[in-house]
Amino acid sequence: MPIEPQEERQRRGPLMTGGTPLRSLDEDELLARILPTFPEGADLVVAPGDDAAVLRTGACTVATTDTVVLGRDWLDAWSSGADIGHKVIAQNLADVAAMGARPTGVLVTLVADPDLSLEWVLDHVRGVADACAAAGVAVLGGDLSSAPSGVVMVSVTALGRLDGEPVLRSGARPGDVLAVRGSLGLADAGLRLLQAGAASRHPVAVSRQRRPEPPLEAGPEAAAAGATAMLDLSDGLLRDGGRIARASGVVVDLDPAALAGDVDALMDAVGAEAALDCVLAGGEEHSLLATFPAGSVPPGWRVLGEVRASGAGERPGILVGGRAVSHTGWDHFRNA
Amino acid sequence: MPIEPQEERQRRGPLMTGGTPLRSLDEDELLARILPTFPEGADLVVAPGDDAAVLRTGACTVATTDTVVLGRDWLDAWSSGADIGHKVIAQNLADVAAMGARPTGVLVTLVADPDLSLEWVLDHVRGVADACAAAGVAVLGGDLSSAPSGVVMVSVTALGRLDGEPVLRSGARPGDVLAVRGSLGLADAGLRLLQAGAASRHPVAVSRQRRPEPPLEAGPEAAAAGATAMLDLSDGLLRDGGRIARASGVVVDLDPAALAGDVDALMDAVGAEAALDCVLAGGEEHSLLATFPAGSVPPGWRVLGEVRASGAGERPGILVGGRAVSHTGWDHFRNA
Repeated sequence: MPIEPQEERQRRGPLMTGGTPLRSLDEDELLARILPTFPEGADLVVAPGDDAAVLRTGACTVATTDTVVLGRDWLDAWSSGADIGHKVIAQNLADVAAMGARPTGVLVTLVADPDLSLEWVLDHVRGVADACAAAGVAVLGGDLSSAPSGVVMVSVTALGRLDGEPVLRSGARPGDVLAVRGSLGLADAGLRLLQAGAASRHPVAVSRQRRPEPPLEAGPEAAAAGATAMLDLSDGLLRDGGRIARASGVVVDLDPAALAGDVDALMDAVGAEAALDCVLAGGEEHSLLATFPAGSVPPGWRVLGEVRASGAGERPGILVGGRAVSHTGWDHFRNA
Repeated sequence: MPIEPQEERQRRGPLMTGGTPLRSLDEDELLARILPTFPEGADLVVAPGDDAAVLRTGACTVATTDTVVLGRDWLDAWSSGADIGHKVIAQNLADVAAMGARPTGVLVTLVADPDLSLEWVLDHVRGVADACAAAGVAVLGGDLSSAPSGVVMVSVTALGRLDGEPVLRSGARPGDVLAVRGSLGLADAGLRLLQAGAASRHPVAVSRQRRPEPPLEAGPEAAAAGATAMLDLSDGLLRDGGRIARASGVVVDLDPAALAGDVDALMDAVGAEAALDCVLAGGEEHSLLATFPAGSVPPGWRVLGEVRASGAGERPGILVGGRAVSHTGWDHFRNA
């Protein structure tokens, strides 16, 4: 049953414009609405509101940052403020987990047109807070800044606690296997369905596009199980798998049979060619991709291929069934 | 001698537009130009380039973030890319120091119109790298994102290592004294001179506006000396001093005689009334303001006033020579 636009709109949440403009509150009033909603997590010592927050840490802290911009990373028509909050937190926490660390805190910056609606901002803040609370992560602070007309961007920095050794991209060795934890291609299929105005054809894919579900606990688990390399799938299996291959100086060979089920599951919704594209090159999935010594793959991970040494004259890289497939993935400035 | 516009322009560095547009490089090419310039600091374990960087930490980590936007926080005509790099790093590290912590790492995000000049970006990166290297701070990572035409913003998150107790804003007690480490009013006077096209009247003030010089080492020193409250002067003496007073539930009374020298030093450049305004309400100075038990003020700090309990019916706040003075300071959204 196709979703009614009206219902879909209500489900999406408040619009970015209309309602109460952000400029009708001063910064302190706005912060008074926002700060109480933020979770504190287990490791917070001093909450936001002073010059800086204080977080209890261990021997090592993992840090990463990622930014989303209205019109480039999301459209108001497709994603609510809460969706964007969930998504930007998920993609940052996925990077922390992909080092083998446990996410502990985030800082969130909103730079926005003062005509942006307060309702959107509060909905967005709720999304950020919910995603952090679900992961046991503290909101350590942030910044609010006004931007030229039409500009809305959210920048997040995520911190994590690392108790063992970090899992880098460069540690894959010949004889390892490549495995994934989580789905493949759903987020890209969801994007294509939104673009085609056909969200009802695969609601799970559309939901994954709006709110990725990185398997955060699987990052430290993989590290403990002896993962030799790991990253999260942000730019697609071929591009991200190729990063592991090149950083490690090895060849990663994907088994087409291991991907057939993922492709089949998307075929009805987006067609055969697009389904293959989604699985091989679809971005924003934020599943974890890792290499393990053969025989050490933890439960819940699916083996997708194998790692071997590059032959004479062969460059490190990724193959599918022994053959090169070209997909360049995304590039922010060239596609702008 | 007035500075020639041509010389001033050359001294300022590359323009934001013209030259090579950012869009002519892909993200990997741009990162290859940027990443090698970043300092590693003493505490870096894994440098940027993986999913996240890894930093050696202690029992507690301090975290803060601050963003600057072209047209609101700076103008191309007044500040070079390197100036903006220095400034955004300085203001973030000042917040870390104001907790009594030692800055250890930053993450830097640039969201920019793809027509922005590559030369400006590389100049900016040099400013970031120089400011971090001077403070012994690692660049832990960042993000590059394209933005609508005309938009350039830089968002920084700074981390610091805290080995003792954090110094909050809320710890000032009756009988303490209020003291400052660093200058007062210079950055605001510099801004007024740039606005008036009269930079040559006080080059030091203009330089302070472009490149603040927070006394970073003084933060941990003040903490060790027993500072009861501390912050960095980002929004002016009255507003920031008032924050300490209200958070601590005390009255802070500034001694006009202690400020007279600061006012006198700016009078020739900006006039008497503006000089007083700069000293009392000038933002972006990033000196440290702290309270200490009387007799415990460390060398290098200047006493500006005293802390007393609020009288019957008197609200906590800041006074000058026993009298209330109203300055609301800045507000980002209302003034936008």
